[in-house]
Amino acid sequence: MANSKYEYVKFFEKESTLIPETYIIIRVDGRGFHKLSDKYGFKKPNDHNALELMNISAQKIMENIPDVVMAYGDSDEYSFLLRKNCELFERREFKLITTFSSTFTAYYQFYWSSFFPETPLEVDRLPTFDARAVVYPNAHNVRDYFSWRQVDCHINNLYNTTFWNLILKGGMTAKEAENRLKGSVSADKHEILFKQFNINYNNEPEVYKKGSVFVREIEDVSDLEVTSNDNLESGSSSITSSSVKSKTISPYMKDALSKRQKDRIQKKLRKSKIRLFHCDIIRDEFWDKRPWLLI
Amino acid sequence: MANSKYEYVKFFEKESTLIPETYIIIRVDGRGFHKLSDKYGFKKPNDHNALELMNISAQKIMENIPDVVMAYGDSDEYSFLLRKNCELFERREFKLITTFSSTFTAYYQFYWSSFFPETPLEVDRLPTFDARAVVYPNAHNVRDYFSWRQVDCHINNLYNTTFWNLILKGGMTAKEAENRLKGSVSADKHEILFKQFNINYNNEPEVYKKGSVFVREIEDVSDLEVTSNDNLESGSSSITSSSVKSKTISPYMKDALSKRQKDRIQKKLRKSKIRLFHCDIIRDEFWDKRPWLLI
Amino acid sequence: MANSKYEYVKFFEKESTLIPETYIIIRVDGRGFHKLSDKYGFKKPNDHNALELMNISAQKIMENIPDVVMAYGDSDEYSFLLRKNCELFERREFKLITTFSSTFTAYYQFYWSSFFPETPLEVDRLPTFDARAVVYPNAHNVRDYFSWRQVDCHINNLYNTTFWNLILKGGMTAKEAENRLKGSVSADKHEILFKQFNINYNNEPEVYKKGSVFVREIEDVSDLEVTSNDNLESGSSSITSSSVKSKTISPYMKDALSKRQKDRIQKKLRKSKIRLFHCDIIRDEFWDKRPWLLI
Amino acid sequence: MANSKYEYVKFFEKESTLIPETYIIIRVDGRGFHKLSDKYGFKKPNDHNALELMNISAQKIMENIPDVVMAYGDSDEYSFLLRKNCELFERREFKLITTFSSTFTAYYQFYWSSFFPETPLEVDRLPTFDARAVVYPNAHNVRDYFSWRQVDCHINNLYNTTFWNLILKGGMTAKEAENRLKGSVSADKHEILFKQFNINYNNEPEVYKKGSVFVREIEDVSDLEVTSNDNLESGSSSITSSSVKSKTISPYMKDALSKRQKDRIQKKLRKSKIRLFHCDIIRDEFWDKRPWLLI
Repeated sequence: MANSKYEYVKFFEKESTLIPETYIIIRVDGRGFHKLSDKYGFKKPNDHNALELMNISAQKIMENIPDVVMAYGDSDEYSFLLRKNCELFERREFKLITTFSSTFTAYYQFYWSSFFPETPLEVDRLPTFDARAVVYPNAHNVRDYFSWRQVDCHINNLYNTTFWNLILKGGMTAKEAENRLKGSVSADKHEILFKQFNINYNNEPEVYKKGSVFVREIEDVSDLEVTSNDNLESGSSSITSSSVKSKTISPYMKDALSKRQKDRIQKKLRKSKIRLFHCDIIRDEFWDKRPWLLI
Repeated sequence: MANSKYEYVKFFEKESTLIPETYIIIRVDGRGFHKLSDKYGFKKPNDHNALELMNISAQKIMENIPDVVMAYGDSDEYSFLLRKNCELFERREFKLITTFSSTFTAYYQFYWSSFFPETPLEVDRLPTFDARAVVYPNAHNVRDYFSWRQVDCHINNLYNTTFWNLILKGGMTAKEAENRLKGSVSADKHEILFKQFNINYNNEPEVYKKGSVFVREIEDVSDLEVTSNDNLESGSSSITSSSVKSKTISPYMKDALSKRQKDRIQKKLRKSKIRLFHCDIIRDEFWDKRPWLLI
Repeated sequence: MANSKYEYVKFFEKESTLIPETYIIIRVDGRGFHKLSDKYGFKKPNDHNALELMNISAQKIMENIPDVVMAYGDSDEYSFLLRKNCELFERREFKLITTFSSTFTAYYQFYWSSFFPETPLEVDRLPTFDARAVVYPNAHNVRDYFSWRQVDCHINNLYNTTFWNLILKGGMTAKEAENRLKGSVSADKHEILFKQFNINYNNEPEVYKKGSVFVREIEDVSDLEVTSNDNLESGSSSITSSSVKSKTISPYMKDALSKRQKDRIQKKLRKSKIRLFHCDIIRDEFWDKRPWLLI
Repeated sequence: MANSKYEYVKFFEKESTLIPETYIIIRVDGRGFHKLSDKYGFKKPNDHNALELMNISAQKIMENIPDVVMAYGDSDEYSFLLRKNCELFERREFKLITTFSSTFTAYYQFYWSSFFPETPLEVDRLPTFDARAVVYPNAHNVRDYFSWRQVDCHINNLYNTTFWNLILKGGMTAKEAENRLKGSVSADKHEILFKQFNINYNNEPEVYKKGSVFVREIEDVSDLEVTSNDNLESGSSSITSSSVKSKTISPYMKDALSKRQKDRIQKKLRKSKIRLFHCDIIRDEFWDKRPWLLI
């Protein structure tokens, strides 16, 4: 074929494939959103429309990509959890992360005018997002990852709420507010808010304090279980390693599932409901209720 | 700090950094554009508006990212050449590719209505793009890469032009046209076009036959040269390795260039003109005229 | 410093670090052992001395590297299992694999004369070994890995035993023996051995049929447990995800363990007994008895 | 086949292939040689036998692996340069580095008794080596790499020579010698050696000051040239990019060379002479004389 003379250049491509049977988390992050939020006049400390725009974009991602079983977001970032046996793009990293960054960007721009009808986007400051994939070998890590993001959300929101009240109601400059908060601990900020601005932080909206969680609701997990090397199904009760017994028909075997089985799982995932919460995802309760998230 | 208990999860992130002093090419590729072009009624075999939309998006990328010295595109793909000494995002792969996929997506959607004013985008078929980075160690490889893409453009366009004429003017079904072209060589397609449809393929528009090339025009390359370990500048004239002599002040040394020098280069790149061509990039002429592209 | 002008070349080094909290298996493999076994006259189908030389080399590796909790070998290969929380060389891949290949090589040559006193090594055919590391996210994968190697041992040994009996006792050429076995299944080989050579394969030595397993014996696993996110310790009994609850004091946190705790674990591992078996490692029994292997 | 049930575990292997058309340098490094040199009584500051043992091991590597065109070593380390078009092990990283670490270890132990006939190796302190591969895109980087190692050799040797003279002839303790040299520059050490011990450092043996260089001598480079995208052969004389012209028959094309051509190159490399030097490899002279090293 005429093209073959140059085709050797393809051999310089390096493929990074994410290790099988691990949880993939893809975090999408707004690029330069500090300037962007100034440019388009986002409200401080939280712009409800901007958060809803993030949320609808995340929700559309979940509707489109059945392997995403959960998403958590706050501020200008969103983290998507892909189930352990996900084979999307054969787990090729570049495909996964550029698809997420591109698709999130597309939804965000598409829905912009619904949330900011008075503020059209300008070409020199379009919202864009980078994305990275991280792989976690076990359910503990995944829970700790989401705890990490939610603690981060809490810390930032408490700081920002206090900071912006000092400025907007307290008449401070940004520099003065920054100095006022330097070295302050959580309790100090609660006190400033309460004594100076009569704000009980605990009564602030949950969406600001906790962020947003989308969950794919699956009523009957039996179909999914066959694909997992899940510890949940085995009623192991002792120190013996019975929970890690090899099954006669190992479910971990590459290609163990027939095309038909895989299609059924995809279909089940696709038609499942996606629900939005603003709740604690650090404690057990959230996860105990939804064992399929960590299958 | 309160957050530290969970922060260990950051250690699971793996960073891939592209090898220094190599050319980076980032190729952006439309996702599912076959269906998308059907959905929005792109003209066959070439939709001029769709190509112009690709081009304006690529041009905006070049305006925004000075390290891109050249871009080549056809159909639904675009390849961007970053200069060898590019330090954008410290050459971190995930940042580079997700920024390109996201930014290209953002421009493409933004300009959509300028080129398809009658055909608004629908949320269930938004245009998105993946992106990959490939690293090439030397100028030969880079030239061969672009030759590969341009040969590909030629082959596809000749095929598509013939295929669609057989359908649109020849009244064939897609299946019939496919069969008609099975096994045909280049000359056969030229002949079909000429004899059956009175089309001289050589007179087809250059933008279809050759694709589009954006070039950053740099009049005085002296500033750039200091950053390169370029063989071009040394008037080497023999088989001796004089062209690879270590300089007393090595320009390859990490941090060899002062912040001020780097800023000057970025400024020079930023204010340089970007020009569009639809020309041959396989032969020497294109490259001989623009030695700075491969510095 | 005088050296700094060239030190930038260090920035071209790429570091691959194996993902935390995953099992590392390092497989060492003889290079060109077909020719080597001819050269030094290894007995066919199994050379007991050669296997013992492999075994003593593997045992010395385990004595030297406490993080290796188990090793399985047959023929000219050995697989070493490193515990999930192993931090050897900060899990840097190049350090791990080249240390194993070099150290195994050193022991093998050192002990050569003990097992082949009449056959000194010659410089043009020294025994060398390559090594690779593979990472497994969960205990199932690890068990399946070792099952894979033991099944491989079985298949090869049955074949080789039959093949060499056909040659040595049956008077066939290698080609004839190969043809005789083409397409034969397990039962056919058993039958050839039994009918033609009066050999009951089941009575062959276990070391040939099963390979060799070294196990680090740990009587009290309580010390190790603190380092693991282990499912064994939690008496979970239902489909709830209680087995993956985050602990108040997470043991998965980077640096969660004090230097003192880590030293104690290393010491415990170092003084533990290492025992050799030639047993089935596919069925549960082996693993149920030794839960610490998969902690 | 019976084995297939577990074979999926192979999919967890990750393959790192070194980028084509780049120079590969593999550096082999003694593990724990400080303790080892104490254990076996290496002479200080330089043990001539130990250096010769390193050298014979490096030489044997070069004899065995034709793609190594040069090696530089000092102290307990050796760096091997593989030619740019080397296809050894399809450039798979794990194969390359573990083969070098294992093979170097094997030669070192094999020749030990020739250089230390009175000091047999003991099993608890066998000499072992790790190895890493670094990839360099151009000839400048390669020269700078070797300059980096030779400068390092010089700095260490000057320090060690002074340090050990202070101890052995000056009667200082190690601590005292260390303090004496703290903050000293090169001239200070020269002066100490000259004034206090009547040693003119410049008269020290070249092997200590410069290290050891093995070179594969190739009289007629024409055969090699065909495999390279080398700038040296083209008598380019201007800023035009003529030196990077694509050839009609591109030599960079994967599989461009016939099996026969490749075999001829391997044969030529294999039968070439390997010579040892203790010379400057920082200045141009060394490289100008041997243009094939950087082809």
